[in-house]
Amino acid sequence: MTKPDIKYLFEPRSIAVIGASANPSKIGHIIVKNIIEAGYKGKIYPVNPKGGEILGIDIVSSLTDIADEIDVATIAIPARFTAAAVKMCAEAGVKHLPIISSGFSEIGNLEEERWLTQFARANDIRVLGPNIFGHYSAKVSLNATFGPRDIQKGGVAIITQSGALGIAMIGKTAVQNIGLSAIISVGNKSDIDEADLLEYLVQQEETKIILIYIEGIQQGERFIGALSAATKVKPVVVIKSGRSKRGAIAAASHTGSLAGSDSIFDAIMRQCGVLRAESVDEALEWCNYLSNAPIPKGENTIIVTNGGGVGVMATDACEKYNVKLYEDSQRLKDKFEAVTHGFGSTKNPIDLTGEASAEEYIHALDVALKDKFIDGVLALYCETAMMTAEQLIRMIEESYTKYKAAGKPVLFALFGGEKTERCITALTKSNIPVYRDVYNATSCLGIAYAYNMMRQMKKQEMVDSEVDISAIDKIIDSALADNRQFLLADEGEALLQAAGLSGPESGIARNIESAVDLAEKIGYPVVMKVVSRDILHKSDVGGVLLNLDDKEEVLDAFQAIMHNCKAHKPNANIEGVEIVEQVKPGMEVIIGAMNDKTFGPIMMFGLGGIYVEVMKDVSFRALPLSRQDVRLMIKEIRSYPLLLGVRGEVRKDIDAIVEIIFKLGTIIKNCPRITDVEINPLMVYEEGQGVKTVDVRVLLSNAEKGENDA
Amino acid sequence: MTKPDIKYLFEPRSIAVIGASANPSKIGHIIVKNIIEAGYKGKIYPVNPKGGEILGIDIVSSLTDIADEIDVATIAIPARFTAAAVKMCAEAGVKHLPIISSGFSEIGNLEEERWLTQFARANDIRVLGPNIFGHYSAKVSLNATFGPRDIQKGGVAIITQSGALGIAMIGKTAVQNIGLSAIISVGNKSDIDEADLLEYLVQQEETKIILIYIEGIQQGERFIGALSAATKVKPVVVIKSGRSKRGAIAAASHTGSLAGSDSIFDAIMRQCGVLRAESVDEALEWCNYLSNAPIPKGENTIIVTNGGGVGVMATDACEKYNVKLYEDSQRLKDKFEAVTHGFGSTKNPIDLTGEASAEEYIHALDVALKDKFIDGVLALYCETAMMTAEQLIRMIEESYTKYKAAGKPVLFALFGGEKTERCITALTKSNIPVYRDVYNATSCLGIAYAYNMMRQMKKQEMVDSEVDISAIDKIIDSALADNRQFLLADEGEALLQAAGLSGPESGIARNIESAVDLAEKIGYPVVMKVVSRDILHKSDVGGVLLNLDDKEEVLDAFQAIMHNCKAHKPNANIEGVEIVEQVKPGMEVIIGAMNDKTFGPIMMFGLGGIYVEVMKDVSFRALPLSRQDVRLMIKEIRSYPLLLGVRGEVRKDIDAIVEIIFKLGTIIKNCPRITDVEINPLMVYEEGQGVKTVDVRVLLSNAEKGENDA
Repeated sequence: MTKPDIKYLFEPRSIAVIGASANPSKIGHIIVKNIIEAGYKGKIYPVNPKGGEILGIDIVSSLTDIADEIDVATIAIPARFTAAAVKMCAEAGVKHLPIISSGFSEIGNLEEERWLTQFARANDIRVLGPNIFGHYSAKVSLNATFGPRDIQKGGVAIITQSGALGIAMIGKTAVQNIGLSAIISVGNKSDIDEADLLEYLVQQEETKIILIYIEGIQQGERFIGALSAATKVKPVVVIKSGRSKRGAIAAASHTGSLAGSDSIFDAIMRQCGVLRAESVDEALEWCNYLSNAPIPKGENTIIVTNGGGVGVMATDACEKYNVKLYEDSQRLKDKFEAVTHGFGSTKNPIDLTGEASAEEYIHALDVALKDKFIDGVLALYCETAMMTAEQLIRMIEESYTKYKAAGKPVLFALFGGEKTERCITALTKSNIPVYRDVYNATSCLGIAYAYNMMRQMKKQEMVDSEVDISAIDKIIDSALADNRQFLLADEGEALLQAAGLSGPESGIARNIESAVDLAEKIGYPVVMKVVSRDILHKSDVGGVLLNLDDKEEVLDAFQAIMHNCKAHKPNANIEGVEIVEQVKPGMEVIIGAMNDKTFGPIMMFGLGGIYVEVMKDVSFRALPLSRQDVRLMIKEIRSYPLLLGVRGEVRKDIDAIVEIIFKLGTIIKNCPRITDVEINPLMVYEEGQGVKTVDVRVLLSNAEKGENDA
Repeated sequence: MTKPDIKYLFEPRSIAVIGASANPSKIGHIIVKNIIEAGYKGKIYPVNPKGGEILGIDIVSSLTDIADEIDVATIAIPARFTAAAVKMCAEAGVKHLPIISSGFSEIGNLEEERWLTQFARANDIRVLGPNIFGHYSAKVSLNATFGPRDIQKGGVAIITQSGALGIAMIGKTAVQNIGLSAIISVGNKSDIDEADLLEYLVQQEETKIILIYIEGIQQGERFIGALSAATKVKPVVVIKSGRSKRGAIAAASHTGSLAGSDSIFDAIMRQCGVLRAESVDEALEWCNYLSNAPIPKGENTIIVTNGGGVGVMATDACEKYNVKLYEDSQRLKDKFEAVTHGFGSTKNPIDLTGEASAEEYIHALDVALKDKFIDGVLALYCETAMMTAEQLIRMIEESYTKYKAAGKPVLFALFGGEKTERCITALTKSNIPVYRDVYNATSCLGIAYAYNMMRQMKKQEMVDSEVDISAIDKIIDSALADNRQFLLADEGEALLQAAGLSGPESGIARNIESAVDLAEKIGYPVVMKVVSRDILHKSDVGGVLLNLDDKEEVLDAFQAIMHNCKAHKPNANIEGVEIVEQVKPGMEVIIGAMNDKTFGPIMMFGLGGIYVEVMKDVSFRALPLSRQDVRLMIKEIRSYPLLLGVRGEVRKDIDAIVEIIFKLGTIIKNCPRITDVEINPLMVYEEGQGVKTVDVRVLLSNAEKGENDA
């Protein structure tokens, strides 16, 4: 489905406000007033059947009276009148409808919202909202919101799902001198969502950085695509509240249950190159920095300070925010010896001592600026009598200007009282990055480094592994036809075979004689497992026996399994006993794939047993994945050193694990009726020796094939 | 050693300033000026051999000319003249000497500082510093610093090791309207240190909360004692920079190497009930809150909001800062239904919707105030047109006043623009807790809950386990006499026996025949280990063999061990082979104890093998420990569920682990020549079945017995 471009939502040549009112307390009045007073130069058409005048402009009684083409019509009337207004807009050929009105899906009125969406789609109209405070576009000085009138122009575009918070952010950015290129309230997202807006904002020159406040996501896969594309071009900061929300989901697989809380969302954001902020303050601080200041080219940082204590604190902050301190102490000594006092230090932090004057700071910062091995500087200053407020301001302005011109970041953290406070206020007004706490400054520098790293990461495209999907589809068909939402052991084995995976050798014995025959053929030791669609947790009922070393043991085991299962589940229909090769021990890992309702196909990896169950030591990724992504995913678990070989163990076959993750990824991507597929354990042997799947568990959904398909 | 009380440092009846100068740029001038202008009412004696006048007060040429008793003499002269000044002070009977002068141990001038300390001690003089900016005491309006003159009086006492940061904190607190009861620069801590100051400040009524900025600790055990005592009476916030400093220490034991970075300090601070802040801003925010606002009595919190988005963010923040949300939704509905709008919510967060007026906020907050099940409230407000700035201020003032009177915490987080900013500024001036971000507000509430919990924790005293210390001392004597800094296997075994621990049965075979005899006596299977003072890493040279099941294997093993050791270490003096009972498998844990240079005896606990080596999953505590402390220490590791029994395993004998920790604690405390003692592994069996030590490793120091003694 191709949707009409939303360019003219942001750059309308004309705007109508339906529900415009002469009454200053009405939203329809405030919006018209904001549009006029914020300096919009296009044509403005207030619309109200009552007619009249508003702020010197005639109110037209109907859109259809207007001869001009209308690019945007903002609707600010009660929900029950909205349908009629939308029809009128369609008739008048309006292409973009921000619907301020609330009273739709957010209060359970799904029907009306669905009608709206369908009608708009049928008439090539794009809807923003409903249930929004409007939108602002700096490009044409359009403030079509009922929020504050004065919005400072700048490089930050904000997309917000919360109206209250969005309006507060307009206020906050004004107070903090952060300029906006756009702010868009998306409300119920009946049509236009974050992905649409990202597409426009990414190519819009005025926007330097995009901030998104999200509460819930509908089309996760589209969103992932849009984010990944956007972060290649400009930084995207996301605040997602409700971190603990998903934790409550009861899930039938490890993958499902461990994907709870916030971990999947967080993993996907990192994968998309998104900078995820925790709070609004943190997000705005990052946006303010990234929209104005240079992005570093490397990651070598030095700290310049006049106090040892704050220098050490800055070192701690660098560790916290992954800012790498430059460590070549001989080079630092050569470069900085001439600019430090007697009791100072040329080790990083460079300590100019409490005696340092403005000239000495400028001098030291010049040395760092000219040094091509230094990529960024944290400059700290504890208030002393060595500089007046004016000298301090001048020093910072002068240094920052030079750094900005050279494209090298320098961030100042100033500690002190009223004098310092005056400097910070003055410098903030000039968009110079100065901070009251070294942790805030370092957080911004860290995020700039992180963005630079992500920008440089090359995205390889995922290539499907060789998997016989049609064979798997047939297995699923038969299981669903049998009214099961899981695969039986032999079906799981068949699925593995379709993926070209070498599971343990096995066969199903319908009677005790064939059990022995099979065991002899496979070779001892063997494992025996009951086969029954009525018994899902086979071990719990004594339906699994291990370490069977000879014929006698197989005979005994067959009888024991039959006896156990009949004792625990008298009515279970037992189809036979599976005889399975007992896989030689290796390092156990778990690989899971699931079709997440929001994000589509998701992969999980962890070491097996206690590491996954007790330590919850797993990593997640959304598809598509490159081989590099999968390697990072494997590296991310805390227990990764075990795969490299510790305590005298040899390195394990990590390449083989990567291949299995690709196999499961290919299956979950191409078989949307599989909700979960999990290999647990996968035995991993030493490097070059491969892996062996021991058990696979597959859960299905009754949903029509293709419903979840991307 | 009893030291003179430092009360008159804080409440002097008279103060002299040695080095007082008529030159306004001199530190000796600024201090006198600050003392006079900040309103000190006692007698002020500027001292300078040159005589003259300063700000209307006659300068005396020598202290000995003053007839009065001098409680404090602040010394602000170059280091080289300090000794003479200190002698003069002793002659004049001065009891407290803040020495501003720098140029002592901080630049390597240890000798002069040592003389100073010894001279002062011999003359019953207490020294603050040297290398400080002075001290301030609100009780007598004494600002004897060369920092800013104006310090607001209040409940926060600050002890700072960094001068630059201390002066900056004076400025910051003034800007942020945080009142101080005292600020003390401790500098080189030649005499008075944090422990001394804590003792005074804990009993000083004006001080409500104590903030300590630390860079390094000298007498760790004394500090631990003072902190533990202080936190029982009032909150103590600590900022410790240099989190990554200790990481570099190479250590010979697991306990030592894992104790690196910041983990020991952090564990000890928690154990002492200290609230540890990361940054200065965070610390000041906590201090400001705790010095003014009520401490909660329970932990049930509700969030009241007019915006859904910030409500969800507050929920996230509560999870982060361990703030427990009240969850009885039926009770909440009964209580709050009458005060919420139609589309609002009575679930926690209580959503009053964007329509909420000041009256409605007051109403809802009144309900929460009167509800005895609610212990604290986070009140959020997104700027709307429903309240003017004045209404907002009045609403908050009114509600806060009622809450404060009732001793219940309410914290406000306000989101908005210029109007909100004005409110925050006004309310901050009245010491009402209002915040720009919900994370900051929640952090303060979380710290208040944490303090309340710690305050209620009863400290039980540690009782030594039964251990034959004199027997252990003899083992150590003989090892040291043998010029070894570690114990041999049989000595380790003897040490365990002296502690009443049942290690595996064992004996040393000097020849192959006695090896067989011993093995037969102990019972198969056995383990065999070479005994040699020249071979520390026995396994590495093939000096250890396991699973020896009968006489034949013992014979082979003896020869193999001899062969291996001679091949690898031709010159090693081999005393024999130890024959050891092979312990039955259990859950492996590691218990370590070490004499930390700073903190004295430290305990470590973790699961063995991979958990400790790869996952670094260990916990630390300083002595003394109560049984309750030890239980918390065991619970703290991430892998704790394994001890409780997961995946079909039974619960392990945790009580027995507690006893072993006490045994090692008793040993490390009473045997200061042991630097490290580590049981690894300790086999833990199911509950009631006890534990068995498999191996113990003991490292010694050559230091004289008693040198490290507490």
